[in-house]
Amino acid sequence: MTLLDHAVQAVKELRPYQPGKPIDELAREFGLAVEDIVKLASNENPLGPSPKAITAIEKALKELTRYPDGNGFNLKKILSEKLEVAPAQITLGNGSSDILEFIVKCFVNDGDEVVVSQHAFAIYGLVAKMQGGVVTQVPAKNWGHDLEAMAAAISDKTKVVFVTNPNNPTGTWNTKAEVDAFLAKVPKHVVVLLDEAYFEYVHKPDYPNGIDYLKDYPNLVVTRTFSKAYGLASLRVGYGISSEELADLMNRVRPPFNVDSLALAAAEATLKDDAYVRQSIQLNDDGMAQLEQGFDQLNVKWIPSVGNFICFEVTGKAAEIYQGLLEKGVIVRPVAGYEMPDHLRVSIGTYEENETFLLALKSLLQG
Amino acid sequence: MTLLDHAVQAVKELRPYQPGKPIDELAREFGLAVEDIVKLASNENPLGPSPKAITAIEKALKELTRYPDGNGFNLKKILSEKLEVAPAQITLGNGSSDILEFIVKCFVNDGDEVVVSQHAFAIYGLVAKMQGGVVTQVPAKNWGHDLEAMAAAISDKTKVVFVTNPNNPTGTWNTKAEVDAFLAKVPKHVVVLLDEAYFEYVHKPDYPNGIDYLKDYPNLVVTRTFSKAYGLASLRVGYGISSEELADLMNRVRPPFNVDSLALAAAEATLKDDAYVRQSIQLNDDGMAQLEQGFDQLNVKWIPSVGNFICFEVTGKAAEIYQGLLEKGVIVRPVAGYEMPDHLRVSIGTYEENETFLLALKSLLQG
Repeated sequence: MTLLDHAVQAVKELRPYQPGKPIDELAREFGLAVEDIVKLASNENPLGPSPKAITAIEKALKELTRYPDGNGFNLKKILSEKLEVAPAQITLGNGSSDILEFIVKCFVNDGDEVVVSQHAFAIYGLVAKMQGGVVTQVPAKNWGHDLEAMAAAISDKTKVVFVTNPNNPTGTWNTKAEVDAFLAKVPKHVVVLLDEAYFEYVHKPDYPNGIDYLKDYPNLVVTRTFSKAYGLASLRVGYGISSEELADLMNRVRPPFNVDSLALAAAEATLKDDAYVRQSIQLNDDGMAQLEQGFDQLNVKWIPSVGNFICFEVTGKAAEIYQGLLEKGVIVRPVAGYEMPDHLRVSIGTYEENETFLLALKSLLQG
Repeated sequence: MTLLDHAVQAVKELRPYQPGKPIDELAREFGLAVEDIVKLASNENPLGPSPKAITAIEKALKELTRYPDGNGFNLKKILSEKLEVAPAQITLGNGSSDILEFIVKCFVNDGDEVVVSQHAFAIYGLVAKMQGGVVTQVPAKNWGHDLEAMAAAISDKTKVVFVTNPNNPTGTWNTKAEVDAFLAKVPKHVVVLLDEAYFEYVHKPDYPNGIDYLKDYPNLVVTRTFSKAYGLASLRVGYGISSEELADLMNRVRPPFNVDSLALAAAEATLKDDAYVRQSIQLNDDGMAQLEQGFDQLNVKWIPSVGNFICFEVTGKAAEIYQGLLEKGVIVRPVAGYEMPDHLRVSIGTYEENETFLLALKSLLQG
């Protein structure tokens, strides 16, 4: 027997998450200049960071030798005022993906089931399998979550249901009526993790705010992130909002210093910069319209999205187009791993980045 | 049944790690000014950060909206050159405590055993219990690891042994001869995690470098950190060095962006700042001598330490002295949770911080 034979079975079977290709790596691979590369692969904010975040980080630099505030006192205070919840309802994560891991650690034993939707964020299944969980994947409806089918898929062994609203990578979303009906059907001992990473970008009047459900559903965790509309992907800050009892449980498995000092400072500052967030959203709205028009002009089909990204259809040649775009210095995201082999996902960039992408795509399609 | 009845049993029984009291929190509690507080509670580097780290962070600020390089290409490259190991032998952690979690996740199933020493870092037991592990604690010898007894405590169910050299909070260390004999006795399918967080501070000629053992022991993981001599506790960067097969396994359970961009940049820069690290170590040597003399003058017993902290004996009044010091604005660390109810741990500070601490202690002991 080798050492690896002694590893936990679930871990031996894991295949790690594949992040979007970093700009540096593409530059190395293709001998391109970093400044010529357009990265639209990771749903990052093209606006650049809030100047208030930069100032806050600069102020915090003299304390680099100190451990972070493990309780995130100030950030929780600002969040609790903004969201009208108690600080004790908030769990801070090194990215909101940390919160998914905490919930799985708290509730999933070997053989327990978690319910996810087809085409949903790959990390859900990964973290569940890591803890020996069994993943029940429910077929999507029009690329989006079929919440009725997901509720029906809950068995006696189900511990957690993951719902993403809007969903990544499809950009689809569920209405308030759908979420209302779904939550009412989920047994009270099953945890619902409602991932709202792209919450700020959605303008639909019947799109629900997950936090409004917390008073009725102590089994609900809503996750949000600073990586998207708040422009702090580099710093890894996200959070869960839940009943105090769920937050207490999550905080038991949370590593004591999971969010670092500069991340805390930048998140606090950006939370106070409403103008920045509004500008991020406006840039996204404009870019989304630009890409939708561009796809239409190229006769490329796309899935209507309320996020900061959009999936477009390139049936039979997704790998080839992805590679062709790379060679032209444009990074998008393949989504074959999400059972979408005929699509690619592109993040909304600045006007210029979107144009560069559309021109590159045009030349590949018409070349 | 409530929701919590459905939580994983091991998690329900967890009590979270208690970090050192942050300066802000003490200031709030006692109405003290932040600048009057001396925090010697968390083994932080009193020198302040490397100027090269500051510059590197400032350069990286414009990319705050980008996700970090999930593979840590540059940091691994610099580390691999410095340590003379392959990049594929390195696993990056959000602090070296991340590496402990990865190893436990990879090897510990419900009911598996992990062996730790009495008076060792509390996180070992916590992460093991989180995964349903059973902790075998081996009595210390003269406050330090009894490696012979630890080897003898390995059973058929043992998956991981945690060895800290030097140990926190006792500051004790094991010799090369002791570690040689220990590693030779550990079965090849049991993982040894050798935590060298305080490696840089040790000057003893017979103190072993864990990395030298890697060629003979594919079951060994050595952990190091940027939080101590490298002065970056706020940013949470640590790493494991191991066989490539162990690193591959750990990277499967590693969250894809566990180390953030500013942390990567600061760690890379500080690694190149040898003068800073030398100065950190010199400041520590001087402060250690100052505290040892100070304790002797106060007739306070202390445990000889090779770390950046020292435990002193205040039998029967540790809680009272801890509280008295707090009221005087000096934060040290109670170690009753480490089965050391008659000691307190103080980190080595600057000359002035050490003086403030010694004066405060004197007035409490002689008051």
